[in-house]
Amino acid sequence: MMDPYVIQMNGNSSLPSVLDMHVNIGGRSSLPEKRKSRKARWSVKPSDMSNKTFNPIRAIVDSMKVKPNPDKTMIALSIGDPTVFGNLPTDPEVTQAMKDALDSGKYNGYAPSIGYLSSREEIASYYHRPEAPLEAKDVILTSGCSQAIELCLAVLANPGQNILVPRPGFSLYRTLAESMGIEVKLYNLLPEKSWEIDLKQLESLIDEKTACLIVNNPSNPCGSVFSRSHLQKILAVAARQCVPILADEIYGDMVFSDSTFEPLATLSSNVPILSCGGLAKRWLVPGWRLGWILIHDRRDIFGNEIRDGLVKLSQRILGPCTIVQGALKSILHRTPQEFYHNTLSLLKSNADLCYGALAAIPGLQPVRPSGAMYLMVGIEMEHFPEFENDVEFTERLVAEQSVHCLPATCFEYPNFFRVVITVPKVMMLEACSRIQEFCELHYHCAEGSQEECDK
Amino acid sequence: MMDPYVIQMNGNSSLPSVLDMHVNIGGRSSLPEKRKSRKARWSVKPSDMSNKTFNPIRAIVDSMKVKPNPDKTMIALSIGDPTVFGNLPTDPEVTQAMKDALDSGKYNGYAPSIGYLSSREEIASYYHRPEAPLEAKDVILTSGCSQAIELCLAVLANPGQNILVPRPGFSLYRTLAESMGIEVKLYNLLPEKSWEIDLKQLESLIDEKTACLIVNNPSNPCGSVFSRSHLQKILAVAARQCVPILADEIYGDMVFSDSTFEPLATLSSNVPILSCGGLAKRWLVPGWRLGWILIHDRRDIFGNEIRDGLVKLSQRILGPCTIVQGALKSILHRTPQEFYHNTLSLLKSNADLCYGALAAIPGLQPVRPSGAMYLMVGIEMEHFPEFENDVEFTERLVAEQSVHCLPATCFEYPNFFRVVITVPKVMMLEACSRIQEFCELHYHCAEGSQEECDK
Repeated sequence: MMDPYVIQMNGNSSLPSVLDMHVNIGGRSSLPEKRKSRKARWSVKPSDMSNKTFNPIRAIVDSMKVKPNPDKTMIALSIGDPTVFGNLPTDPEVTQAMKDALDSGKYNGYAPSIGYLSSREEIASYYHRPEAPLEAKDVILTSGCSQAIELCLAVLANPGQNILVPRPGFSLYRTLAESMGIEVKLYNLLPEKSWEIDLKQLESLIDEKTACLIVNNPSNPCGSVFSRSHLQKILAVAARQCVPILADEIYGDMVFSDSTFEPLATLSSNVPILSCGGLAKRWLVPGWRLGWILIHDRRDIFGNEIRDGLVKLSQRILGPCTIVQGALKSILHRTPQEFYHNTLSLLKSNADLCYGALAAIPGLQPVRPSGAMYLMVGIEMEHFPEFENDVEFTERLVAEQSVHCLPATCFEYPNFFRVVITVPKVMMLEACSRIQEFCELHYHCAEGSQEECDK
Repeated sequence: MMDPYVIQMNGNSSLPSVLDMHVNIGGRSSLPEKRKSRKARWSVKPSDMSNKTFNPIRAIVDSMKVKPNPDKTMIALSIGDPTVFGNLPTDPEVTQAMKDALDSGKYNGYAPSIGYLSSREEIASYYHRPEAPLEAKDVILTSGCSQAIELCLAVLANPGQNILVPRPGFSLYRTLAESMGIEVKLYNLLPEKSWEIDLKQLESLIDEKTACLIVNNPSNPCGSVFSRSHLQKILAVAARQCVPILADEIYGDMVFSDSTFEPLATLSSNVPILSCGGLAKRWLVPGWRLGWILIHDRRDIFGNEIRDGLVKLSQRILGPCTIVQGALKSILHRTPQEFYHNTLSLLKSNADLCYGALAAIPGLQPVRPSGAMYLMVGIEMEHFPEFENDVEFTERLVAEQSVHCLPATCFEYPNFFRVVITVPKVMMLEACSRIQEFCELHYHCAEGSQEECDK
């Protein structure tokens, strides 16, 4: 009998001559009779999950007709990456820590999927506070803060449940949630209150399917930093409604001297909190992909179940690069205070400069930031009737002035745009002056408000 | 009116005094009347996904009563990590490449989620073959080969579909698939045919819900390397049944001199193949978490849809550490041939030594490996009546001889155990001699086979 598993070298094997391969198998077949036969033609479709994975920034930016003015050099205030302009290098001690880890030869093998115990101990002791104690068992190292957020959502929410997400807010929350079939409910941040949360509206969104509340402080894209009392009110809502919190604190400690960053967990002893962070922003190495989850659960509400769930999920792709893990201790302890100080000085100086310049431009309403690396600017669209919306406004700003800002539609907040303030000072100045020229050219008096135009 | 969002400092906010917070809001409430109220008590449960994420190796190993013999030093032949014994350091050029990438200062920022273009170009040209051409667009860099496999499964299969997985095989396939609700169907590898696939049984498993076939060559845990003709037969099944292939080729090129590794894609022009690989094994840096997917789709069966799906999924947590990406070019081109040769010499020498020693032990049936870092050993359980199964056998081997091998139940293949052959030679010898002592002590003649016992 012919062995059907010998290749037929007639060069046409993608189109099988015998559609039903059963007859070809011969001998004693172990096939159940009722087995559904496979259609013998190719049809490979992407999964529902990949279809549901949507990155709004990519979708909006890619569809923008961005042709910069060839007579002006491009200034990209759109990229939330502090390393692209070369003015914010990481500290030499951070680089040296990596070299030391490489030279030791001790960090080439697999680490536990949640990270080396020693590295988790370092993070625990660095972020330990008397009011929010941490041990190594409370720390999970991840491949960037993105994976930290992904694991938290994956452990807390089932498909069909919902999470509460800030508007304006970082688009990854929606991208991750929807890829997992989790519904996103948007709660409002109030620009007139320095982007504090509209707590009544937030609380009105909570229902029995609410799996967690995401609190992003300091905020991307707002650059806002919540006060202690506002954080306490947020915690009160969570406590009253029994909703655990995912605190995205990747910009933790990146606040200007006139503000204070309060880790959310230090203000609560009853609300269970997963705090996500990483090296990306404060140490200016976002590409290194080292993030973490800090588990705060002093009332044992998460319990071992959520902890075990996070560990199990971490085993799916394992953790961050071991060299960065090995360098963690030195990165945390040897980076000079001066480095953090210099970064914040530059950010604060650019923030003041940018806020001042844009606040003086008729038609724009910047909101003063207190931390992170961003500033949001409201566009009084009634004064720019040529433009349909923030997307068109920023599109034309590129076309005419070669200044690229992200339209806040990327953050579900139309008629604003986001300015990244990590650029060199001269570039910041130049960008503001071009934005001014652009606005002056396109500013129209709104009907029935002549007095405003006269000023 | 009292602001309900002011914290009540009565210290009991975890137990709200007013269960229905609606009445507390006051004023003009924007709450729809029919909104389902949330039960005001804490109940945070891990998601179905985390409950379904199961790592059989962890479950089996953690439940083993492993108390080594205190009089004998522990020899762990259980860990598939070539770096743990210190005898297989990575090449100095590999470490230097990382330092150069650090010193350049160019690789601290975010890379595209699928990796730097230049790094993908390097991988493409390194793995390009005339029969299986590759360009940068065919390469996706990932956080280790684990994430490569995860992305491939996530893009190809929906919950409720099934994938075909080798038995014995690497447990991660099942862990990932089941976490995503994808069914695993096991096809058999045949020890008597050097672990070739039982193609008839494989084909009998395929139905209209089969999303992909995982082919792992060279194999973990078997150490087997498929011949060209066997690979062609596998491709013929896939072509006939129109099933795309996920080729796990993380041990590619890690074959002994008497075998040849044939990348699966070089043997087929019609079956669409996602080949997964990484730096982990060949460059001996598994902790660095740099993997990749090579997309082979010369008949355009995956098309842009699957490519776009992979890109979208990669944006969920972004890619691997940028320093490793920046070092890729030098790692690929400057690592001396001698380094690869030395690794393979050690593996081959240990494989021969271990195979020879174990083959001489009554009751054991090792299968000679041709590559990778493993060797599988059959246990003739009828000769070891004291032990229930391979788990108990390996457990007692630890207790008496302080030699730890993974029971092949971890790979869904009972009554075998897996030996890792990356250990130093003296350790390999010592382990084999202890296994011999253990087997001699526990070997019993099977009933009715006295002649075998006399030999």
